[in-house]
Amino acid sequence: MNPPVIALLTDFGLRDSYAGVMKGVILGRCPQARVVDVCHGIPPQDVRAAALCLRQSAPFFPEGTLFVVVVDPGVGSVRRVLWAKTRRHSFLAPDNGVLSWMADAPVAYRSVENPSLRLKPASRTFHGRDLFAPAAAALASGVSPAILGPAVAPRAHLKFPALKKLPGGRRRGDILATDHFGNAVTAIPAAAARGRKIFFRGRALGPVRGHYAQVRAGEPLALIGSSGFLELSVREGSFAHDFNAAPGDYAELS
Amino acid sequence: MNPPVIALLTDFGLRDSYAGVMKGVILGRCPQARVVDVCHGIPPQDVRAAALCLRQSAPFFPEGTLFVVVVDPGVGSVRRVLWAKTRRHSFLAPDNGVLSWMADAPVAYRSVENPSLRLKPASRTFHGRDLFAPAAAALASGVSPAILGPAVAPRAHLKFPALKKLPGGRRRGDILATDHFGNAVTAIPAAAARGRKIFFRGRALGPVRGHYAQVRAGEPLALIGSSGFLELSVREGSFAHDFNAAPGDYAELS
Amino acid sequence: MNPPVIALLTDFGLRDSYAGVMKGVILGRCPQARVVDVCHGIPPQDVRAAALCLRQSAPFFPEGTLFVVVVDPGVGSVRRVLWAKTRRHSFLAPDNGVLSWMADAPVAYRSVENPSLRLKPASRTFHGRDLFAPAAAALASGVSPAILGPAVAPRAHLKFPALKKLPGGRRRGDILATDHFGNAVTAIPAAAARGRKIFFRGRALGPVRGHYAQVRAGEPLALIGSSGFLELSVREGSFAHDFNAAPGDYAELS
Repeated sequence: MNPPVIALLTDFGLRDSYAGVMKGVILGRCPQARVVDVCHGIPPQDVRAAALCLRQSAPFFPEGTLFVVVVDPGVGSVRRVLWAKTRRHSFLAPDNGVLSWMADAPVAYRSVENPSLRLKPASRTFHGRDLFAPAAAALASGVSPAILGPAVAPRAHLKFPALKKLPGGRRRGDILATDHFGNAVTAIPAAAARGRKIFFRGRALGPVRGHYAQVRAGEPLALIGSSGFLELSVREGSFAHDFNAAPGDYAELS
Repeated sequence: MNPPVIALLTDFGLRDSYAGVMKGVILGRCPQARVVDVCHGIPPQDVRAAALCLRQSAPFFPEGTLFVVVVDPGVGSVRRVLWAKTRRHSFLAPDNGVLSWMADAPVAYRSVENPSLRLKPASRTFHGRDLFAPAAAALASGVSPAILGPAVAPRAHLKFPALKKLPGGRRRGDILATDHFGNAVTAIPAAAARGRKIFFRGRALGPVRGHYAQVRAGEPLALIGSSGFLELSVREGSFAHDFNAAPGDYAELS
Repeated sequence: MNPPVIALLTDFGLRDSYAGVMKGVILGRCPQARVVDVCHGIPPQDVRAAALCLRQSAPFFPEGTLFVVVVDPGVGSVRRVLWAKTRRHSFLAPDNGVLSWMADAPVAYRSVENPSLRLKPASRTFHGRDLFAPAAAALASGVSPAILGPAVAPRAHLKFPALKKLPGGRRRGDILATDHFGNAVTAIPAAAARGRKIFFRGRALGPVRGHYAQVRAGEPLALIGSSGFLELSVREGSFAHDFNAAPGDYAELS
């Protein structure tokens, strides 16, 4: 049998040892686990960015992967920690809506409450280490999810931003995130964008392109990104930088 | 038996291949090793930050973990490389005091001198690759520490910053580091802080709080961080940014 | 037999899940693979920086390592993807010259064309996930390179910058990259630099030094870096910062 894969998605960054310490805890309790970093670069406490990242990345991980999602503005307060299960994967995450945008929606949830699964003493500020990591190690070691706590329904849900009709017939969709290359990922699905002309702050970006090489280096364009949403880009450049674009901005469709 | 865990702690950053090359050397000589990143984000040549990071992270790694610590302003000069052993872990590190702050102090040291354990030719600037990595691989493969070199006492020791009494009865403690979230970690242990009021540059931050949600978003607070020291934070914000706080600053206790 | 090592070298950064998703795809198709990060910090689309990084790092990885190099300004256009083989390693990389600078030059190339090895549907913008990762997993699982596509000769070649003679007898060599510590790596090999005096923008940096401790903290120096090229550094500081040095600049030799 293949070793269990534990995939970490956090806003911890890589400047400190937070992600490393989680791995230390997991390996101490489940030495056979394969621990993989999905990403630790979620902007601090940005639950929407984490929800988008999970939607984009989870489908590409092996069946049986346990995702540990620690983007958790409510750490130490009364927010719950959830275990969730989809057809192919399982998840540990705060009950803050971060699991809301996955194409493969969870079919079961539990509230992670069992105090025997926590490090002792547990801190109030680093549940990734004291609560998520030991629970993940227990699950990867074969402990039944029923041990974690009772079946529940999630309390928090993040609404995916809908397209909005504008006077004159255009529609607009939010920019959800920008990436390392300066691409701006919108909430506009491919099906809504195809055949349309794209605008940003009144500037025409032309039709939806097939790939970057269809415009000249340094020119902006719009194309369907690798996660199936419309993205605004600059060929061999940064749309985020050149247009000062960020979440809160939006793209318009003809 | 579980495969040996080798945990890397450096100031190499992740922009270059320095950390990756260390892993290449280790895997070539000890394919069964589990190589884990504690952190590569120590500020360049900041031995104090590395000492603090090691204190915070080492206790959470499995028994038998070999830590390889390469924060080494003296690389290429005459500084020694040490092997050290605590009750649960072992370490390879420059003899520059970086092992001084661990709660579980080393009980044995050796000077790593055996030239047969180095890559040839060895550079004068990348001992992580040419000296630390092959020595780590040898140890993880079962080579006796006695092969490394003679038992020694460490030359360098870092003094942990003591609290300082101020006129009027207050005490102050250094800020040792800031983290990715902008939390400022002080050298004030929990036992000294509890029951006190906290101040920063004359501004009252209130009593020591239990968790972030006890103040409003954007407000500063002081709490006991996950490593047992007083930390200054801003809820859903950055204390380091908002107060321009950095190592060299200090917090005051009533 | 040791598990196959797959070493990733990209310009994806670690802010997003791009590198993590590649690992997910690989582990889903070749669970026994050891996936190691060489580096994801190549400046976006900087093929020269990637070629230099590969030259510096590949020799230190185990025999049999498969490098997956995704620094790919032409993604989605007609550029080919190559498989290449040297005496000790194999490679998947765009046909853009990124393999040109390795000391151990490839002895065989194939064009990666077999559509059955791609994820379906494949995007036009994320070939790391949809094409490189599944091809790497197939190779690591024992699929013959002949399945990938026909033997070819590479189309693109990057010329390594030669030293240039200056009026008055000096020679100059390009700065190829700067690193995390602010060292400026030049294209001047050790053999050409030894015994010379080094200058940068007219400022004398002295002879080639053996190690940093030969100058005072904060002072600039030149030495042979860990990859065998002349580097410009500041002891316990950053040459790149202090001298505003970057690729495009050059060092001069007496």
